[in-house]
Amino acid sequence: MNLAEATIAVVGATGAVGVEMLMLLAEAGVPAERVRAAGSERSTGKRVPYGAGTLALREPESAIFDGCDVALLAVSSDLAKEMAPAAAARGAVVIDNSSAFRMDPAVPLVVPEVNPAALQRLDPRRPIIANPNCTTIITLVGVTPLRRAFGVQRLVIASYQAVSGAGAAAMDELRAQAAGYLAGAEPAPSVFREPCAFNVFSHDSAVDPVSGMNAEELKAVHETRKIWDEPGARVFATCVRVPVFRSHTIAASVELTRPASEAEVRGAIAHGASVRVIDDRAANSFPTARKASGGREVLVGRIRPDPSVSDPDSAGRCRGWGVLIAGDQLLKGAAQNAVQIAQMLPEGSR
Amino acid sequence: MNLAEATIAVVGATGAVGVEMLMLLAEAGVPAERVRAAGSERSTGKRVPYGAGTLALREPESAIFDGCDVALLAVSSDLAKEMAPAAAARGAVVIDNSSAFRMDPAVPLVVPEVNPAALQRLDPRRPIIANPNCTTIITLVGVTPLRRAFGVQRLVIASYQAVSGAGAAAMDELRAQAAGYLAGAEPAPSVFREPCAFNVFSHDSAVDPVSGMNAEELKAVHETRKIWDEPGARVFATCVRVPVFRSHTIAASVELTRPASEAEVRGAIAHGASVRVIDDRAANSFPTARKASGGREVLVGRIRPDPSVSDPDSAGRCRGWGVLIAGDQLLKGAAQNAVQIAQMLPEGSR
Repeated sequence: MNLAEATIAVVGATGAVGVEMLMLLAEAGVPAERVRAAGSERSTGKRVPYGAGTLALREPESAIFDGCDVALLAVSSDLAKEMAPAAAARGAVVIDNSSAFRMDPAVPLVVPEVNPAALQRLDPRRPIIANPNCTTIITLVGVTPLRRAFGVQRLVIASYQAVSGAGAAAMDELRAQAAGYLAGAEPAPSVFREPCAFNVFSHDSAVDPVSGMNAEELKAVHETRKIWDEPGARVFATCVRVPVFRSHTIAASVELTRPASEAEVRGAIAHGASVRVIDDRAANSFPTARKASGGREVLVGRIRPDPSVSDPDSAGRCRGWGVLIAGDQLLKGAAQNAVQIAQMLPEGSR
Repeated sequence: MNLAEATIAVVGATGAVGVEMLMLLAEAGVPAERVRAAGSERSTGKRVPYGAGTLALREPESAIFDGCDVALLAVSSDLAKEMAPAAAARGAVVIDNSSAFRMDPAVPLVVPEVNPAALQRLDPRRPIIANPNCTTIITLVGVTPLRRAFGVQRLVIASYQAVSGAGAAAMDELRAQAAGYLAGAEPAPSVFREPCAFNVFSHDSAVDPVSGMNAEELKAVHETRKIWDEPGARVFATCVRVPVFRSHTIAASVELTRPASEAEVRGAIAHGASVRVIDDRAANSFPTARKASGGREVLVGRIRPDPSVSDPDSAGRCRGWGVLIAGDQLLKGAAQNAVQIAQMLPEGSR
């Protein structure tokens, strides 16, 4: 869909992800008069930046979807469950950033670089598409090129997640706590239970009492299986927050199905869509959270064999590989992925 | 060895680790008049805190080892290569915190909770003991209880390392850069090549051009094999710096040799020496860098099965387990481990 000719609603427009959605729509050439932005009720009437100008925030009510081609939702899961059907009933194709519909078998869960074909299964009577979890998107953009070339038998990730995943208030909390700490104050956690400045803590999502996995880790497991269309995919995750504003970093251990040489692995990753390899061993230059921030690409580096999986074969090919991946959580991990999905929609999807 | 009756030299006494060594010696009751502390030449004559009082810093020359029972070295690897033989030649048992002697087959590499018996192989003609790498110590204190109970077939870690491992100057750099960032300044990296405030970056040690592993990761692999006395141990590591002052956190994926139930795994870890389990799923309370800082124990939590290794057996026992480990890098990861080794020495080691 050519967004420059589309009418688009953005709900949650004042949140950390919504702000980036507006930025990307302006960049894609959507005229301001064709964008309907809504925040919470209390922000109605205020203005938000849009391109060189501003937009008035509308009320977050179903009427804003009338005549819209696409509705981008960047709201809570609970709110999404109400608004997505309302928008779809009014004919808009919904791209929802929450977890509300991700595991619904009738809803495509799409990373354009990974499973674009899933969009073909969009139900025209219930046109809702789910935007995956940020860590899952960033990891899969980095790892799927290896899966296509060699197969993936097992994927284990440890994440270094920015606070932005918990919204704009979390970013404010990190800023305030860091300033307080440097001034000698004790942190007073609010968004998170643990102090976030100069700390590392297990992800703040609820922990399943039986499996012991937190919700973020379960998303990485289950969403990966759905996106890869491989219900039995062997995936394990440890999701952890670090004092970073907006980019997630992921240490991934990948066990390939077929062994590969380092040249083959590097070649596959380098040709991955939306991937940029940063891997200079001599200069110790690799993906960092900071290098990823504000960028549109997923950075991959520290590409090296993991001989703990199995010894190299006689040709020196290995099944185990380690990589370090970094991506902007608010862009490729959220807003950008949603806007890319909108751009992939056929004309006249509405 | 009863440290309260020992004469002890501390070289590198003004560094991040040396300061903690003095704190621990005072706590162990070593009288000030039996401690000989040396910093760099330029600090000679200055005073450092010791217990309720202070100590005058001596010149870092070999004569300070005369009559010493134990020499604790917290200096660079290059300096340790000079000073350790000099101290040993004067009859002191050397406990060296650098990497200089760790892989020397004739030098015991000791974590008291893990391989105390290695001390029996101390060569009385060359009494040098190596203190392992901080990440290795903290990881092995957390994981070895599982190895003892069930065997470990493979260990994969991703680290979240404090800047303190790069010394006091790195801690100052984090403080200054964080303050600068909050005031809108661009960071000017000095100790690290990458900005350290609000960033995540691959460990700053040199990267081996062939294996692609950085020196910190190679230490984790090779030191683990030596400490476990298992030359073929399958270990892989991704070592990463995070904006934390002094505690390392480690996400570990452990593949056991024999499957174990959750109760068995928890029991084994809870009985581990110097281990404290923090694992409250309902309250989302787990080890954090902050909780570990200043503490003497290694914190372990997020204890949960990793079914990506293999399906549970008919009794529900699993071979794969995930844990999150945190420990104070300057204490258990360095100074405390060294002082514990000194305490384990037989009386009259000198």
